[in-house]
Amino acid sequence: MQLQDLSTPAALIEHQRMTRNIERMQQRMNQFGVTFRPHVKTTKCIEIAKAQIDAGAQGITVSTLKEAEQFFAAGMTDILYAVGMVAPKLKQAAALINNGCKLKIIADNADSAKAIVAFSQANQTPFEVWIEIDTDDHRSGVNPESDELLTIGRYLQQGNVTLGGVMTHAGSSYDLHTPDALMALAEQERRLCVLAATRLRAAGLPCKNVSVGSTPTALSAQTLEGVTEVRAGVYVLFDLVMTNVGVCTTEDIALSVLTTVIGHQKDKGWAIVDAGWMAMSRDRGTQNQTHDYGYGQVCDSNGKLLNYHMSGANQEHGIISHVSPTCTADISAELPVGTLLRILPNHACATGAQFPEYNVVASTDEGSPALGPTWPRFYGW
Amino acid sequence: MQLQDLSTPAALIEHQRMTRNIERMQQRMNQFGVTFRPHVKTTKCIEIAKAQIDAGAQGITVSTLKEAEQFFAAGMTDILYAVGMVAPKLKQAAALINNGCKLKIIADNADSAKAIVAFSQANQTPFEVWIEIDTDDHRSGVNPESDELLTIGRYLQQGNVTLGGVMTHAGSSYDLHTPDALMALAEQERRLCVLAATRLRAAGLPCKNVSVGSTPTALSAQTLEGVTEVRAGVYVLFDLVMTNVGVCTTEDIALSVLTTVIGHQKDKGWAIVDAGWMAMSRDRGTQNQTHDYGYGQVCDSNGKLLNYHMSGANQEHGIISHVSPTCTADISAELPVGTLLRILPNHACATGAQFPEYNVVASTDEGSPALGPTWPRFYGW
Repeated sequence: MQLQDLSTPAALIEHQRMTRNIERMQQRMNQFGVTFRPHVKTTKCIEIAKAQIDAGAQGITVSTLKEAEQFFAAGMTDILYAVGMVAPKLKQAAALINNGCKLKIIADNADSAKAIVAFSQANQTPFEVWIEIDTDDHRSGVNPESDELLTIGRYLQQGNVTLGGVMTHAGSSYDLHTPDALMALAEQERRLCVLAATRLRAAGLPCKNVSVGSTPTALSAQTLEGVTEVRAGVYVLFDLVMTNVGVCTTEDIALSVLTTVIGHQKDKGWAIVDAGWMAMSRDRGTQNQTHDYGYGQVCDSNGKLLNYHMSGANQEHGIISHVSPTCTADISAELPVGTLLRILPNHACATGAQFPEYNVVASTDEGSPALGPTWPRFYGW
Repeated sequence: MQLQDLSTPAALIEHQRMTRNIERMQQRMNQFGVTFRPHVKTTKCIEIAKAQIDAGAQGITVSTLKEAEQFFAAGMTDILYAVGMVAPKLKQAAALINNGCKLKIIADNADSAKAIVAFSQANQTPFEVWIEIDTDDHRSGVNPESDELLTIGRYLQQGNVTLGGVMTHAGSSYDLHTPDALMALAEQERRLCVLAATRLRAAGLPCKNVSVGSTPTALSAQTLEGVTEVRAGVYVLFDLVMTNVGVCTTEDIALSVLTTVIGHQKDKGWAIVDAGWMAMSRDRGTQNQTHDYGYGQVCDSNGKLLNYHMSGANQEHGIISHVSPTCTADISAELPVGTLLRILPNHACATGAQFPEYNVVASTDEGSPALGPTWPRFYGW
């Protein structure tokens, strides 16, 4: 099989780039002396999670209980489910735990904590719960300086429940684009999560794990004092949003969508390709960043950057335009019908989710890249 | 099973609404005396396509050859693949035809037409090809007034190839929001597609089928003279974009995402739910329309509209806020942890694509709605 034999659109992963991204993050964490727990929601792919673990990761982070089930079935036992637990999901979580999964769940409010304790008491199920801390005002989590933190912590000492630690995710890092701002947010994330741990311990409560992370803060932190583990997801493939944030270059992006030119509108300078938003996803994360890449950056079939981007997308049609609106070159001559292109995505998590599998390719400077294995990925809940 | 027993997030279809939407469109087409070929890319669901055919649809439209294969395997034989054909996909199309599928393919340029003829000659495969016409400058298609139209038409008379007709899709209708503008575009779509057919016939070429359509133009056309069939997709479920276009109300939207409140940020007036953009999709189609619904309109678990919308979304977290930024009500009291909500989506095609199945529910004004069957849907290429 060669690249030309793939049915388009197809999701390609450049293996060397992915491996380099994994090693870069793991080495950084090793230098800090913290453990690393990758967030596998980015890829939902057993083979990739195994590569992360082989490189030194300890445990994984998941965003759905389906991910927990799938990765546990593949032999991974140390799993943090990083979305706030609610009562209706406890039965599913308990089934995993009763089967031997070392699942950790999280809570950021007293109602959820009480529900976990009540279920634990009624069903003799042991739960290890971490408290989610809000360190950047962007989403969930309890204020690390609040009384509520201690209230939740005390609830989580009852029944078969163990308070396992605190965790936070400074997701507002995606909105930044300077090293100074990223370093400052990474320090805020660390400081406030450690503060929560310190307050719990001062109140006589256990807090073994102090877990922080997002790809931008993980790659920007200058100290991780008091932190025991870091989590990050998108670093494994990177994407155009991350280039704008400033934590990678386009040369690091390991995911692209292979597509075929199917027609043109010469007068408008358009080539039409068979990858629309169903393939790229509707994610337009670079829209409000320094460099707006439209629905993606266009490369040739070997991954070399071209001066084209995907300026528009319908469900199964992408519109490819020159990045310079004044360019008068004949696009139908430059990119004739049948041309294979690769599109770098705005957001690797969103684009990957549109595909049932990844096609692994070797990186190459010349000639057609060698095709590697096909790695399935799953979706849904 | 009740609604409360579903794992959230889940994609719900209100059966009565869907049935009403199907009947409304089919009756309109019957009155015009044209056949109706629904675009099944919206749902990729055998059961829904069967309901459309049972109501009177003749044939289906698909956006991928995988859809063609899946629906053909389910017994549907009259299939229009409405994305421009290119050489690498001909083998897959030929396999369908050789197995008895009455597949129609499309072309809008001479290169593709030549490739189809060459493959047909080399492989003794008969292809019925329709020419795609550009009637609104928004995407693919050949200019109906161009010489190229006739050139393509003549190519498609060679080998085992049959010129079956012309087709167009005035997708720019999604950008409109007044009845006058919609009626004008519907008439433009009809007039220019009929013009293409007339020019082909005047040149001595056959043009049996004249196929037009998009949901907004199909519901706005005042005459369909010269048209033989209409295509539309999203009308079967409708969505918030379509309410802004003005061709449905929120009472017609048959798709919603069931989600559970998992926490709050009281100071910000936020409830956090377990449906993020992975469930809703990243589609923000209403962003530049008259009414921006964020990531969706919030309803209670029976589908009754609430004064909340999804103002932000992470991968598995949605942020629910009051539509009035000055509202001071305590959201944690109004929507406590564990509350089930339904979110109406921006775009039914994009949101549905995030789910492996639909859960059918009965419409209800009171009490918990009865749960119907689970209908699988497929994805990928």
